[in-house]
Amino acid sequence: MINDIKTSQYSIRKTVSASFEEAVKQVQELLKQEGFGVLTTIDVQQTLEKKLYVAYDKYVILGACHPQSAFKALQMDKDMGLLLPCNVVVYEETKQVIVSAIRPTVALSIANEPALHEVAKEIENKLQRVVEHI
Amino acid sequence: MINDIKTSQYSIRKTVSASFEEAVKQVQELLKQEGFGVLTTIDVQQTLEKKLYVAYDKYVILGACHPQSAFKALQMDKDMGLLLPCNVVVYEETKQVIVSAIRPTVALSIANEPALHEVAKEIENKLQRVVEHI
Repeated sequence: MINDIKTSQYSIRKTVSASFEEAVKQVQELLKQEGFGVLTTIDVQQTLEKKLYVAYDKYVILGACHPQSAFKALQMDKDMGLLLPCNVVVYEETKQVIVSAIRPTVALSIANEPALHEVAKEIENKLQRVVEHI
Repeated sequence: MINDIKTSQYSIRKTVSASFEEAVKQVQELLKQEGFGVLTTIDVQQTLEKKLYVAYDKYVILGACHPQSAFKALQMDKDMGLLLPCNVVVYEETKQVIVSAIRPTVALSIANEPALHEVAKEIENKLQRVVEHI
């Protein structure tokens, strides 16, 4: 089955039937609906081609920020910007298109700030819905 | 002493005597010297003001990528883009300017990929030098 969600140690991942370009558009739209702004977009394929002259699969890293949650996290620990934004990646692999979102409960746990867990869980639920709804 | 480096659970941090703007410039330059490209810049102050109408301290998140290391990491686990790029933040706090870099040995450890540790350590050494040399 192509649409099953797999939760790994640090990611929520799904193989989708859309094209790469369509999947990127859908992710952007769904992130917006969940209250995220996409603050950064890294074209990994282009970067690796430009810097290392290697041919690589289509791959983008979208940096998604939920402003209220980011603000809460920064108020707990100002270094928390080191762990922001939350990345969602879309890439091609052996002709399949994968969408994968970071699990904030795992990524933010390295800050060792117990009060952060609730915020991380809220964001993880939103990212889970984004991946589910593609 | 204003220039001592503090290594926390997940960051390498220093209070610097430069102005915020000067510190950002220096970080950009030092990252370049260590082989990083700065792929993303997030103006946190501006983002929070625009989205939440709050006044916040000057704060930028620089997303630094060391292409060879990123490529190695992606070859081990294609989801690794979720943990890239490596962030370095510069911010004001009670009239002091702080520079803080992520510790890749900690941030990438959540991927649970033992072979990644060596790459993470190399990058951490580079980021350590960036913070030391400001």
